[in-house]
Amino acid sequence: MPERFVVIMAGGRGERFWPQSREATPKHLLPIVGDQPMLAQTVARVTGIVPAANIFVITTKAQLGGCRDVCPELQDNIVAEPEGRDTAAATGLAMLLVKQRNPTAAFAMLPADHVIHDTAEYAKLLNVAFEAAESPDDVLVTLGIKPTAPETGFGYIQQAGPWRKVGGRDVMAVKRFVEKPDLATAKGYLASGEYFWNTGMFVWRVPVVEAAFKAHAPGLYAGLKQLEAALTQAVVRDTALLQLYPTLQKISVDYALMEKSTNVVVVPATFDWDDVGAWPAIAKHFTPDAAGNVLRGLAMVEGGANNIVISTDGHLTGVVGASDLVVVHTAEATLVVPKDKAQEIKALLERLKQDPAKKKYL
Amino acid sequence: MPERFVVIMAGGRGERFWPQSREATPKHLLPIVGDQPMLAQTVARVTGIVPAANIFVITTKAQLGGCRDVCPELQDNIVAEPEGRDTAAATGLAMLLVKQRNPTAAFAMLPADHVIHDTAEYAKLLNVAFEAAESPDDVLVTLGIKPTAPETGFGYIQQAGPWRKVGGRDVMAVKRFVEKPDLATAKGYLASGEYFWNTGMFVWRVPVVEAAFKAHAPGLYAGLKQLEAALTQAVVRDTALLQLYPTLQKISVDYALMEKSTNVVVVPATFDWDDVGAWPAIAKHFTPDAAGNVLRGLAMVEGGANNIVISTDGHLTGVVGASDLVVVHTAEATLVVPKDKAQEIKALLERLKQDPAKKKYL
Repeated sequence: MPERFVVIMAGGRGERFWPQSREATPKHLLPIVGDQPMLAQTVARVTGIVPAANIFVITTKAQLGGCRDVCPELQDNIVAEPEGRDTAAATGLAMLLVKQRNPTAAFAMLPADHVIHDTAEYAKLLNVAFEAAESPDDVLVTLGIKPTAPETGFGYIQQAGPWRKVGGRDVMAVKRFVEKPDLATAKGYLASGEYFWNTGMFVWRVPVVEAAFKAHAPGLYAGLKQLEAALTQAVVRDTALLQLYPTLQKISVDYALMEKSTNVVVVPATFDWDDVGAWPAIAKHFTPDAAGNVLRGLAMVEGGANNIVISTDGHLTGVVGASDLVVVHTAEATLVVPKDKAQEIKALLERLKQDPAKKKYL
Repeated sequence: MPERFVVIMAGGRGERFWPQSREATPKHLLPIVGDQPMLAQTVARVTGIVPAANIFVITTKAQLGGCRDVCPELQDNIVAEPEGRDTAAATGLAMLLVKQRNPTAAFAMLPADHVIHDTAEYAKLLNVAFEAAESPDDVLVTLGIKPTAPETGFGYIQQAGPWRKVGGRDVMAVKRFVEKPDLATAKGYLASGEYFWNTGMFVWRVPVVEAAFKAHAPGLYAGLKQLEAALTQAVVRDTALLQLYPTLQKISVDYALMEKSTNVVVVPATFDWDDVGAWPAIAKHFTPDAAGNVLRGLAMVEGGANNIVISTDGHLTGVVGASDLVVVHTAEATLVVPKDKAQEIKALLERLKQDPAKKKYL
């Protein structure tokens, strides 16, 4: 079997989980769902699929220490972007890191902060995706989740019929990638049976994704070639990154490569998958009380239903006579937001950014 | 001018201000409104009306230290009930404390935790009440507030026409004391112009209130006579209280004396007065932001109106997309409750009482 790699993208800021997630401890460094930080859960899921030495983590400077604490076994395989340049640049960096080790290997790009409980099916389909990527057809492989609801928070992938069977599973040709739809469109996607949720999980071989950069993102590709030349000496990796990475074009991998490529296939997946996009999403991962309240730590609800109340550090948080709220207490900050307004947290964080006296609460 | 005394009743638990108010630090020991604890504000208001040596505070054992901290100048004039026996027993104790010092003096009984900004008018009317009480007619004097709204949270006093002019002010005879009314009844009271809010502020001479005990509460009176005999030696005050006070009948002064007495007069008052009964009541004492939010400490509201958010100890509390909430953060506990459900806090505190692991948060 050819050598395989996994690159875990762990650079998200996780602002939607403030105040538990902070600049240096975003969602993937916290046990938002489960007992381990999300990144540790992601590493655990791919351990056994590739050797630990072949697992990379791409993170930010602020989170580097946190990632090393969570994954001490990965050490130098944890690489910090000097600054965030969106997912296409991160994909390019991932490609270069793998290429230095094995210029023809396939690698999976996986988000660090998703929840997947059915690890057996996940492993099975990731192997199917690797096998598809390693085929001589030079395809870009993505994992797509069969939608169960007309979600407007995800991009979608439209399939164009069967590509071939791999490892006993149907892999589909991809017709197009589409951006997050409105509700009516999402309902149409769901009803058609032709669409999958775009999970941001990709598998491809180095030469195949490199060809995609060259064909569809020539400016970014030129930058990556410069970076590759500088990276040849491992000892200068950080300096090279510091100088060149911030010059790379800032664009998403979906927009730069996936929407423009014609050699994309999708592995249909039905394992449970949740990107846990914001506080309200955690509710389904915990057992609520009789009134539907999810309570963690010293949290109490009296006369209210369907709240999420999290109270850490021996602090008591009591919600009285209110329903459908998210209340999160941490040592330094407390958030109160109705579940259906959770996306508005960003406006509060924006104000914190503007206020020198309050910046430290980010 | 005859000698005058003030006895401040500072035994309330202030549960409605949890979590700022705790068992040992109830509302009157906190600056719920204003910069000083409510008790200190009450003492300051009567300083100048009576000498400091003539101001007593009746409190509970748990709050004794707190009261001494707030009013160091009062020292031995701060007396702790061994246990709460309702307001009639506290009135009896007040009477005995004053009687030991001057058996014919008048004394005012004043709640420790009310907000009154117009101290000049307050002082004026308290002096009117003293003068009325010192008249040879042996009356029980109460201060009644002219209602400005059909409040259902107060008892009312119905007047029966002018009694006499005292200090240039009309003092009215009292027809009856009535319990907290329902809204329709309260509207009738307001419309009639005959009713006042019962503030729990009373002034009377020792012999007059003693006669009322003897006539209307003979069982309690017998207990008070026993206590009086034991109290003759100041050094045994605490022991005597400990043994006898808990045996006193538990009944309110309104029910035991005021509703049964025919020699009651009321001083009509129009100074601003607020018993600040619960969290929502504090809003009118602070300047809100443009959206009507009252913010104290590191409190922020984004996309919400008319909230009260209090965040102490350098902790940031952010409310996003919610309105009409009370959110109070203290070092040990946080409360979230809609303003119109504030009375339901008691149910939460009841649960804390039942739970040995959570009792300490009371």
